[in-house]
Amino acid sequence: MTYSIGVDVGGTKIAGGVVDEKGAIIARTRRDTPSKDVSGIVGSIVAVTRELAAQYDVEVVGVGSAGFIDAGRSRVMFAPNLAWRDLPLRDEVSAATGLPVVVENDANAAAWGEFRFGAAEDVDDMVLLTVGTGVGGAVILDGQVHRGANGIAGELGHMRLVPDGQYCGCGLRGCVEAYASGTALVRNARAAAAGSAAFPGSPERLVELAGGDPGSISGPMVTEAAQEGDALAQHLITELAGWLGAAMGSFVSIFDPGAFVIGGGVADAGALLLDPVEEALRRNITGGTHRPYATVRLATLGNDAGIVGAADLART
Amino acid sequence: MTYSIGVDVGGTKIAGGVVDEKGAIIARTRRDTPSKDVSGIVGSIVAVTRELAAQYDVEVVGVGSAGFIDAGRSRVMFAPNLAWRDLPLRDEVSAATGLPVVVENDANAAAWGEFRFGAAEDVDDMVLLTVGTGVGGAVILDGQVHRGANGIAGELGHMRLVPDGQYCGCGLRGCVEAYASGTALVRNARAAAAGSAAFPGSPERLVELAGGDPGSISGPMVTEAAQEGDALAQHLITELAGWLGAAMGSFVSIFDPGAFVIGGGVADAGALLLDPVEEALRRNITGGTHRPYATVRLATLGNDAGIVGAADLART
Amino acid sequence: MTYSIGVDVGGTKIAGGVVDEKGAIIARTRRDTPSKDVSGIVGSIVAVTRELAAQYDVEVVGVGSAGFIDAGRSRVMFAPNLAWRDLPLRDEVSAATGLPVVVENDANAAAWGEFRFGAAEDVDDMVLLTVGTGVGGAVILDGQVHRGANGIAGELGHMRLVPDGQYCGCGLRGCVEAYASGTALVRNARAAAAGSAAFPGSPERLVELAGGDPGSISGPMVTEAAQEGDALAQHLITELAGWLGAAMGSFVSIFDPGAFVIGGGVADAGALLLDPVEEALRRNITGGTHRPYATVRLATLGNDAGIVGAADLART
Amino acid sequence: MTYSIGVDVGGTKIAGGVVDEKGAIIARTRRDTPSKDVSGIVGSIVAVTRELAAQYDVEVVGVGSAGFIDAGRSRVMFAPNLAWRDLPLRDEVSAATGLPVVVENDANAAAWGEFRFGAAEDVDDMVLLTVGTGVGGAVILDGQVHRGANGIAGELGHMRLVPDGQYCGCGLRGCVEAYASGTALVRNARAAAAGSAAFPGSPERLVELAGGDPGSISGPMVTEAAQEGDALAQHLITELAGWLGAAMGSFVSIFDPGAFVIGGGVADAGALLLDPVEEALRRNITGGTHRPYATVRLATLGNDAGIVGAADLART
Repeated sequence: MTYSIGVDVGGTKIAGGVVDEKGAIIARTRRDTPSKDVSGIVGSIVAVTRELAAQYDVEVVGVGSAGFIDAGRSRVMFAPNLAWRDLPLRDEVSAATGLPVVVENDANAAAWGEFRFGAAEDVDDMVLLTVGTGVGGAVILDGQVHRGANGIAGELGHMRLVPDGQYCGCGLRGCVEAYASGTALVRNARAAAAGSAAFPGSPERLVELAGGDPGSISGPMVTEAAQEGDALAQHLITELAGWLGAAMGSFVSIFDPGAFVIGGGVADAGALLLDPVEEALRRNITGGTHRPYATVRLATLGNDAGIVGAADLART
Repeated sequence: MTYSIGVDVGGTKIAGGVVDEKGAIIARTRRDTPSKDVSGIVGSIVAVTRELAAQYDVEVVGVGSAGFIDAGRSRVMFAPNLAWRDLPLRDEVSAATGLPVVVENDANAAAWGEFRFGAAEDVDDMVLLTVGTGVGGAVILDGQVHRGANGIAGELGHMRLVPDGQYCGCGLRGCVEAYASGTALVRNARAAAAGSAAFPGSPERLVELAGGDPGSISGPMVTEAAQEGDALAQHLITELAGWLGAAMGSFVSIFDPGAFVIGGGVADAGALLLDPVEEALRRNITGGTHRPYATVRLATLGNDAGIVGAADLART
Repeated sequence: MTYSIGVDVGGTKIAGGVVDEKGAIIARTRRDTPSKDVSGIVGSIVAVTRELAAQYDVEVVGVGSAGFIDAGRSRVMFAPNLAWRDLPLRDEVSAATGLPVVVENDANAAAWGEFRFGAAEDVDDMVLLTVGTGVGGAVILDGQVHRGANGIAGELGHMRLVPDGQYCGCGLRGCVEAYASGTALVRNARAAAAGSAAFPGSPERLVELAGGDPGSISGPMVTEAAQEGDALAQHLITELAGWLGAAMGSFVSIFDPGAFVIGGGVADAGALLLDPVEEALRRNITGGTHRPYATVRLATLGNDAGIVGAADLART
Repeated sequence: MTYSIGVDVGGTKIAGGVVDEKGAIIARTRRDTPSKDVSGIVGSIVAVTRELAAQYDVEVVGVGSAGFIDAGRSRVMFAPNLAWRDLPLRDEVSAATGLPVVVENDANAAAWGEFRFGAAEDVDDMVLLTVGTGVGGAVILDGQVHRGANGIAGELGHMRLVPDGQYCGCGLRGCVEAYASGTALVRNARAAAAGSAAFPGSPERLVELAGGDPGSISGPMVTEAAQEGDALAQHLITELAGWLGAAMGSFVSIFDPGAFVIGGGVADAGALLLDPVEEALRRNITGGTHRPYATVRLATLGNDAGIVGAADLART
C-alpha cells in the first residue's frame, strides 16, 4: 500500500490528509487559512504537509485550490478569494517539503474524489455541481478530469441561463450561479421576508430562525425550515432546483454524462433538492424521454472529497 | 502510405472518398440518398464503398451519419431525417464489403477532419459548430472526440439560450438552434419581408432575390444580399452571430477550448458572420478580458470535412 | 323604453340583436360571414340590421368589428381577418339602413357589455382580456372606453412578455398572445403529444380525444381533459394562466383597475383557469400584498357581450 | 387672472410656486426636506404655502408628492422615501393655511404640467416617463389624468420586461425600472469599470471623471462622457434606451398615446437618449410601420413641471 497527501485549501481552513490507494483518509490535520496573506497560506500548506509526511511515508502531494490552475498543474494563475496571482505553488511547496507536488482546481479534486471513491464510481463520464456560495463545476470525461486548453474548463456555474438576467459576481448577467447558488437562495429568502410578493407562503418561520432579523436569514436556515415543512422555504429550494435542472438539461446535450453528482452546502437539503432537480431535468431533455440520460446523485464524500481527490489525482 | 475510406451520409447525397494518412482525398464518388428508404441507404453506402475499394487497397471504412450513434461506434440508435432506428450499420456494411467499419456521428467526423487536417490542427481542444439548417456541434478534448456515456455528446445546438424562448425542432424551447441556425435566419428574413417591424432596413433586395416571393427567401440569398451591403441582411446575420457568440461564451466556461471552428452553410458569410461572432463572444466571457480564451476560425475543409474525418477516425 | 341594435361581426358569423336600455336582447338574428368578401360582409351587416329594425323601433345601431377603428367611430382602418382596409363602414351601413350608426372595436364592445350589464357592473375601471385564438383586450377607465389617440388602444395581447420570445402573428416576438392564447395552448398540447419532454404527464387522453391524431388536438379538448382531471391538460392550462397572471401584474401597475374580466373560449375552463391566474397575479404585484388590487372574474355575458355592448355604446 | 400654488415635495427639497392660469410661475420659494420626519415635512409644506400665499391672492393649493395617493386626492397612503403611511395631508395643510388643498402623485403633477403647458400641449393622450433614480410614469388619457380605481395607476416603471430578470426595488424581478433607470445605468457603468466584459469600450474616461474610483461613477458622469463621445458611455445610454423603447412599444399597444414625454435626470442626455429610444420603439411596434403611433419628446419644463402641474391640477 502506498500513500499520498491531499490538501484542500479553502477560504477559512486548510485541511490535509494522508490517503491510501483505496481513498481512505488514515491521518488528518488542519490549519486556519491566513486570509489575504499569500505567503502565509503557502506556509500553512507546507506545515500541514510536513506534519502529515512525518507520520507516513508518502509518495506525492496533491493540493486542491480554488481558482484558475495552469494546464501544467503547477501554478495558480488567478484565485480571487485568496489574493493569489500567478503563484508557482507547486514549486514552492515542493521545495519546502522535498516531495513531488501537483496543484489541482478544488472542484476538479472533489469531482475526482467522488468519481474514484464516492457517488460516481460506476461511470466513466460525470459532471459535478457544487451548490454553495457559488456554483462550482467539474467534469470527468472518459475517466479523465477535463482541464481544457488553459486548465480552466468546467466553470459550469457561468453558463448563461437568462439573457439580461440577474447580475453575477463574474461580471456578466444571467449565469447559473446567479440563480442556483446558495447566495441566490438567501437573496430570495430575504426578499420574501422583506415583503416581496414574488414568493408564495409566509416568511414567518424563516424570520424566526433568523432571530427576528430578515437580513440574517442564511442558507442552512432555509434548509432547516424546508425540512420542517415550511412552504416558503420549500418553494425557494424548488425554484433553485428548477434552474439547476434546466442547466443540467443543457449539460446532458453538451456532455452526455453517465451521472450528475450534486454537492455543496445546499445539497444538505437532500431529497428536497434532488426530487425537483430530477423533475426539472426530465423536462429539459432534448430528444424526450426516449433516450438514455444521466442519473442524478448527491455527493457522498462531503468535505473529504477535496482531500481524497487531490491525493489521488497526484498519483496520476 | 495506407488508405481508408470515408463516407459522409447526408440527407440528399452519400459522398465517399479514399483518404490517405495526410488527409488528402485521392478518389471520390457519390450517390443520391434514397430518402426514407432504410435498406436503400445502406445499399448506397455499400455501393460507394465497393466502388472506392476497387480502386485502392484500403484498410478500414469510416461512415459518418447524422443521429445518435452508440458508444461502440456500431449502431445508429436514432436518426430523425433518415428513418433509422437502432440500425446495426457497422455490421451491415462490413458484411457486405468485407472491410472493417466504424460508424461515427457526422459532426464528430467533420470536427475530427478539421482537427487533424483543417482549421484546428494546432490545438488539442476544439469546439466545432456547424450552422446550417440546424446547429450541430462536436467537441475534441485533449485530442480525442468526446462521445459521452451514450455516444451522443456534443449536441451543442440544444443548449438552452432563452427560457420559454422560441420553439425548437427538438421539442424544447429556446435552444441555440432556435436562434442561430439557418432556419432561424430564414424565418426572420421572411418575417421582415412580411412587414415585421422587428428588423431594421428594407426587405426590398431580399424579396427581389427571391423573385418577388417573400416566402421563397433562402439562407444563401441572405448571405448574398449581406455581401452586397444590404442593411437588413447584414442585420439578420449580425443578430444570428450575437446568439452564436453568446452561446460560445458559455462554451468557453464549460470547455475552455483552444479554438472554435465554425462551419455549415451560414459560414459562407465569412467575415460578415465571424466579426460579430467574435464581438459577441468577447462580451460573454466570464473573467473578462484578462484570461486566455479560444480563437474563432472558419472551417477550411468545407464539405470534405466529413469524408476526411470519418476516414481518419476509422484508423483510431 | 328605447331600443338599439348591436351587431357583432365575427370571422364566421354576423350576429345581431335588438337591445333594450337594461341590456336585454329582445330579438336576434344572424348570418354566416361571407369570408374575404368586403362588400358581402357589409351587405350582411345591412341585412341583419334591416331584419331587426323591421321588428322594433330602434334609435341607433352599433357595429362591433375586429380591427383598428378610427377615433371617430366611423371607419375600419385595418382588419386583417376581414380583408378590410380603410372602409367607411359607418356611412355605408347608415346609408343603406337610414339609421344612425357607430362602429366600435369588438373587444371594446364586449368590454362595455360586461361593464354595463355583466361581470364588472360594480367598478369604474376594468380590464377585459379575451383569451381565444388570440388574446384581445379592452379597457374601461373612469367609466369610459379608452380608445387612444388613434382609436386603437387596448391591444393588451401585444404587450411584450419575453424578450426574443416566441413568434407572434403580429410580426414581433414574445407578446402575451404568443404565450397565453388558445393558439399557444394548442401548440403546446400538440408538442407534448409529439413527444416533447417539456410538459409533464401523459398525452394519452388528449390524443384519444383527438381521435388518435396529435395534430387534431384543439383547445376545447384540452379544457375537457383538464376538467376530467388529466394532468397534462391541467398543466397546460396552468402554464397559460401563469403567463396571463404575470401580464395582469403589469396591468395592475399600469391601470390600477378595479376588476379584470376574462372571456374568450379558454375561459370555459372556469376555475381551472381562474385559480392559477389569481395565484400568478398575486405573485406579480408591485408593492406586495399590502396594497389593494383588482379582483379577477370570468365574463358572464358570453357571446352576447359584443351585441349588448355595441348596442349600448351606440347610445353614448 | 387667478392664481394657485403648486408644491413639489421631493426627497431633498420642497419647492413651491405661485402659478397663473397660463402656467407661469410668478413667485417661488423652497425649503430643505426634513428627512424621515413626518410632521416636519408637513410643517415645511405649510411654511412654503404660507410664504407664497402672503404674496398673492391664491385660490387653491396643489401638493405633488411621491407615493400612492388615494382616489380622493386627499391622503398619502404609502410613500416609501418619506416615511408616510396613510397621512391625511390635504386636511392637515388645509387646516394650517385656511386654503383649499388637493394632493396629487408627483409624476401625475409633472405629466399634467407638460400636458398643459409643456411638451405635450398638442395631444389628448400622453405618456410621461421620468427616468431618474427610478422610472416613474403617468398617463393623461382623453385630457384627464388617469388615476385608476385606487388612485395608483401609471406605475409604468414596474411593467415586467424580463421574466426572472434583475431584482427591482419593488420586490419583484425584471421591471422596466431594473433596466432603464439611472440606477441601472450607474450599476452597469460601475460593473464595466470593475472589469465586466459585458460592455464594449474602455471605462478609462468614466473612472477619470469619478476621480479614479469606479464606485463613484454617477449618472451625470455617464451623460458627460457620452456627450464627449466616449464609446462605453454612449453604449450604456443606448442599452438603457433599448429597454425604454421596448417598454414604449408595449405602451403603444396598451395606450395608443399621441405622444411620449421623457423627463428625469437621464433625459439630460438629449438626443443621445432620444435617438436610440425612437429606433427601439420603431422596432417594437405591433402592426409594423403602417399604423400611426406616438411621437417621442423630451420634457420641456424641467423641475418646474411638478409645481406647475400641481398648481394647475388643483383648479380642476
